[in-house]
Amino acid sequence: MASWNANKNTQNSTRQIVNPDLDIERKTASFSVERLTNILDGGAEKTQMRRTVEAMIQSDPVFSLENQYFMSQNERYEDAVRKSVHLSKMAAKMGWATGGPELAYCHRVLSANLAFNVHVVFVKSLMGLATDEQLAKWLPLAEKFYIVGTYAQTELGHGTYLRGLETTATFDAATQEFVLNTPSISAMKWWPGDLGRTATHAVVFAQLYLNGKSYGMHPFMVQIRSLRDHSLEPGVTAGDIGPKMSFENVDNGFLLLKNVRIPRENMLAKFSQVLPDGRYMKKGSAQINYLTMIVVRVLMLQNEVVPNLMKACTIAIRYSTVRRQSELKPGDREAKILDYQTQQQKLLPQLATAYAFYFVAKYLRDFFDRGYMETKEGKFDLLPELHALAAGIKVIATDYCSAGVEICRKACGGHGYSLLSGLPSLFTRQVAGCTYEGENTVLLLQTSRFLIKCLGMAQSGQPLPSSVAYLTSESFGKCQAQEKRDFLNPDVYTEAYRHRAFRVARNAAVKLQGLVQQGMAQHDAWNRCSVQLAQAAMAHSQYIVVEKFVKALETFGKEAAIQRVLKHLCDLYALHGIFSDLGDFVQDGYLSTKQAEMVTESYLDLLAVVRKDAVPLVDAFDFSDANLNSALGCYDGQAYQRLYEWAKKSPTNHQDNRIFETYLKPLFRNALSKL
Amino acid sequence: MASWNANKNTQNSTRQIVNPDLDIERKTASFSVERLTNILDGGAEKTQMRRTVEAMIQSDPVFSLENQYFMSQNERYEDAVRKSVHLSKMAAKMGWATGGPELAYCHRVLSANLAFNVHVVFVKSLMGLATDEQLAKWLPLAEKFYIVGTYAQTELGHGTYLRGLETTATFDAATQEFVLNTPSISAMKWWPGDLGRTATHAVVFAQLYLNGKSYGMHPFMVQIRSLRDHSLEPGVTAGDIGPKMSFENVDNGFLLLKNVRIPRENMLAKFSQVLPDGRYMKKGSAQINYLTMIVVRVLMLQNEVVPNLMKACTIAIRYSTVRRQSELKPGDREAKILDYQTQQQKLLPQLATAYAFYFVAKYLRDFFDRGYMETKEGKFDLLPELHALAAGIKVIATDYCSAGVEICRKACGGHGYSLLSGLPSLFTRQVAGCTYEGENTVLLLQTSRFLIKCLGMAQSGQPLPSSVAYLTSESFGKCQAQEKRDFLNPDVYTEAYRHRAFRVARNAAVKLQGLVQQGMAQHDAWNRCSVQLAQAAMAHSQYIVVEKFVKALETFGKEAAIQRVLKHLCDLYALHGIFSDLGDFVQDGYLSTKQAEMVTESYLDLLAVVRKDAVPLVDAFDFSDANLNSALGCYDGQAYQRLYEWAKKSPTNHQDNRIFETYLKPLFRNALSKL
Repeated sequence: MASWNANKNTQNSTRQIVNPDLDIERKTASFSVERLTNILDGGAEKTQMRRTVEAMIQSDPVFSLENQYFMSQNERYEDAVRKSVHLSKMAAKMGWATGGPELAYCHRVLSANLAFNVHVVFVKSLMGLATDEQLAKWLPLAEKFYIVGTYAQTELGHGTYLRGLETTATFDAATQEFVLNTPSISAMKWWPGDLGRTATHAVVFAQLYLNGKSYGMHPFMVQIRSLRDHSLEPGVTAGDIGPKMSFENVDNGFLLLKNVRIPRENMLAKFSQVLPDGRYMKKGSAQINYLTMIVVRVLMLQNEVVPNLMKACTIAIRYSTVRRQSELKPGDREAKILDYQTQQQKLLPQLATAYAFYFVAKYLRDFFDRGYMETKEGKFDLLPELHALAAGIKVIATDYCSAGVEICRKACGGHGYSLLSGLPSLFTRQVAGCTYEGENTVLLLQTSRFLIKCLGMAQSGQPLPSSVAYLTSESFGKCQAQEKRDFLNPDVYTEAYRHRAFRVARNAAVKLQGLVQQGMAQHDAWNRCSVQLAQAAMAHSQYIVVEKFVKALETFGKEAAIQRVLKHLCDLYALHGIFSDLGDFVQDGYLSTKQAEMVTESYLDLLAVVRKDAVPLVDAFDFSDANLNSALGCYDGQAYQRLYEWAKKSPTNHQDNRIFETYLKPLFRNALSKL
Repeated sequence: MASWNANKNTQNSTRQIVNPDLDIERKTASFSVERLTNILDGGAEKTQMRRTVEAMIQSDPVFSLENQYFMSQNERYEDAVRKSVHLSKMAAKMGWATGGPELAYCHRVLSANLAFNVHVVFVKSLMGLATDEQLAKWLPLAEKFYIVGTYAQTELGHGTYLRGLETTATFDAATQEFVLNTPSISAMKWWPGDLGRTATHAVVFAQLYLNGKSYGMHPFMVQIRSLRDHSLEPGVTAGDIGPKMSFENVDNGFLLLKNVRIPRENMLAKFSQVLPDGRYMKKGSAQINYLTMIVVRVLMLQNEVVPNLMKACTIAIRYSTVRRQSELKPGDREAKILDYQTQQQKLLPQLATAYAFYFVAKYLRDFFDRGYMETKEGKFDLLPELHALAAGIKVIATDYCSAGVEICRKACGGHGYSLLSGLPSLFTRQVAGCTYEGENTVLLLQTSRFLIKCLGMAQSGQPLPSSVAYLTSESFGKCQAQEKRDFLNPDVYTEAYRHRAFRVARNAAVKLQGLVQQGMAQHDAWNRCSVQLAQAAMAHSQYIVVEKFVKALETFGKEAAIQRVLKHLCDLYALHGIFSDLGDFVQDGYLSTKQAEMVTESYLDLLAVVRKDAVPLVDAFDFSDANLNSALGCYDGQAYQRLYEWAKKSPTNHQDNRIFETYLKPLFRNALSKL
């Protein structure tokens, strides 16, 4: 541990002295930071491997993030391509396998700075949708980046609703080709990553037409740029969609197709095929492809969403121990801002949230692996539950973790507004997750559709999947807590979340049923209940997060110190949730006025407890300084020195005197005689 | 109206055809849009004048915002200087007075694109702090931009807590000079706008030292750059603090002073003076300067915070009527997304919030004017109440309006993530307001200090200022509503907000008192209650917003259609607030379970009502297309066409082939033989 920390300090700075205000926080840790790091990594040997890989990356100047905050979108894109090509060479040299742990560790450090992001989805879609013959042709080329592909589904005027997509692929039996067209402006493919300036190929989703009849959405392999000179292929118009809130490393693009002809063999034909005579042939169910969507969401939580919040917590909590502001006790030195209850109330629930979603993402991943094995054996029973869970948890994870990053950013005051803090880019990147891989409201309503269905099954006495078994309840009665410490009992708060989830879902279902019974059309009634249905999906997902965190605690029975500190976080997460949505818990009298006050007091007490271990708890995430890339959040706590050094390098300090000469001098010379 | 709208359509586009999906929304307005615009402007003649000025600005190519989203920070700064200098010439030519309405209308269009922002504060601080003699010297130069000044208070390590500032000004009687120094890195002035690359002068706040004794913070006029060649003056180190989340037009800067000598006359001496022999002389109270801080906050709400939310609502609501997504009714065409309850639940409360804060900001402005008149007569009685109100409302306005902009942005799905939508820059700019002009948590605790003081006064039978008169209550009993329509009675919901404010404040005070009685030191007890004290300030401010909105409705008694639509918004604002913070209202049984359900139903019903007038209600804000600068939100609703046209202009589509030649070609040529 010691040597790694020393390593951190030298990575992008020559300073070795740790700010004493931060140093002292580490001396009182109630648990072994290294042990918790190992747990988060999945074992000490994995920590070791990760650190080795990260050290390799960080010692290579091509991978430096040093000037990232000063770059234009064009420069970020070029930098990303440079890094990606370099990484692929390094991986080849080191023998790191695609999908192996080493490359995953590389992505932990570089993910916001690489190109070819959607190329990965392109490869996955080939594996899911192509025949063996097609795979043999395309996959080896794609894996070595001899071609770069994109996944072109979303259109300018069409998002989640696939049936609404307008792009067409019409079979021409005479030439044995499909003719692809973009029939209107709103049908343009819009947003796919790597499409704007990189991709040579695209998996294009289009409505298949055979003899004038539509057969619905199908995937087609289309070459869009020349491999020789990168010029656009005939009939193809493509480009970059321009500046975005973040993701400057990605060339999101647009694509218009005008009578683009591709051979019949280029329809990805694992699940359906067009025969030479134009007949359509179905080849089994594409249900297994469901799993791709789910695993992408789970990986997104594990690799992006949770780590981003962890980084933001690391920066904000370390900075809050070196930032001093105002007197807490009259006459004393200005106090560390982390000692203010209001600052604890901002940051510590985010820290608990990061841990909570770490554990629930791990649970989801295990559940997915189980589901994946079962589908391989032809059993699809787990799929609906898995889909509903992954969707709901994707929503609250992206919602809470992006809100959490922004809370961390604001809690750093003015300096949190500087890009050099690292926080603005964490937020602008994180918040995109609320929209991509399934827009959050759309996903919530999918989860609530599952809940409503399960409530119906419960009514008719059918057994329910385990995560929703509570929907068979009649009532949960009242909360049994007698005094405020009872709210530190996981059974008590888990029950409260379960009760809330049950009540909200049942109320939505009752309202829905009532409207339909009054004669309202089902779709109108659904729309009229949709705010409450979305709430039901949120409440359900929240319950799962709390329940899985509590479950995870049980596995640390032999490590008292670790278990204790994680339990504080679990308690804090759960009580903060009740405190924040108190109405949900008191509205029907489940919590009494007195109990509501106990929750508040118990929650506020916990802030002071968790505060003591706050720095060790973020140190355990083990982000190197180079990875954080934050002037505020480095391991040594020398925030002001670093802000100043970094600011001096800004291009804004290297603009020539032309602005003065052109605009200001003619004004200022009028003052010369008067001063 | 018609001609203005035609004007809008041609301003930055040649299209005249309004998207029929948007057009139809305007045909069913329940009120006169033009009349509501006049009301918001303060009269028909003001609307006329504003439109004339805006048309002048928008027809001048120097003021074009066309390429704003493609510019680097350096380009934005240069563009801002160019525009500002051009505007000052135009103002001189037109005879527009500083502080007059014409320049205010110019700022409505250009505020995010001008330089010399803090120069305005510099001028205000001169007027507040300088003697008549000093004013006569500096003011004429500053008003004509012959010098540009900044206001250098905040330091790298010190924000709101003025006593903590470290910069020193030591009087040297021998030379009759002050010697200014930055004693440490954390003492560097950091953040002042216009400081980084523009300002020739700075009002520097420093600890005054006379004969080794500190006299606290005082303001000093310091020349920092040469008027002749813009080089830094001897002993001065200054520069730009680098990239930020937004405000690229502003050159926020840093400033280090090393033995910088200024003449004794350069201490701004309206309220205290140093005599030639080094004696300190106080010259009356600086209390009136309190007012500057207050008026800056009020103007910020009126000129920035509320208009930004209005713009975001305009963009998101117009777009939500042209965006179609999924089937609402099976077999129908894809539905306008504004017809989904979940979309209404996102956007319409933001629309109501924009109107609510428009009216409360107007109230605050009137209250300020009254307070200002009284202080001129030597009466300072209103100041504490005015300060507490302005602080609390600044907080909730910046909190709610920045959250509101972000909700609008997310509600536009993927396209809201494109800078071309105009929404990301509205958010990144808006959210800064939570930190500047008083960090929000700090301000809340100032307001709560006032509330606690008033509760104490109430206990001892003293009369209270009108906005807090409710703190004399004993109890509010229970809510009297019998059925859901009772919640459309402003008396019912205003009472609910008043009750909540009272309960939260009283509970915080009781807890505080209890802790002190148990022997806890006052400052510790305050800290232990600060989360709840901040909540009390929020609840109080919320009550004021609702109450003032209700009061404003009463002034439209003779205009039934306007009054009706504004009442819908007021109801929606109030009920959305209860719905969102339900716990606050049900926790003590003020609302029963049944009543809580009534609030929810009444609130959801209102969404469908306000939805009908949503487009006319944003049209009434009367932002021109050029002002919105949004590909999604233009008056004609041609969102997709415009997104495509704007994207094609992006610099990302004009990068040369070097990246392909350097990085990609060596890879892709490996595929040539295989495809």
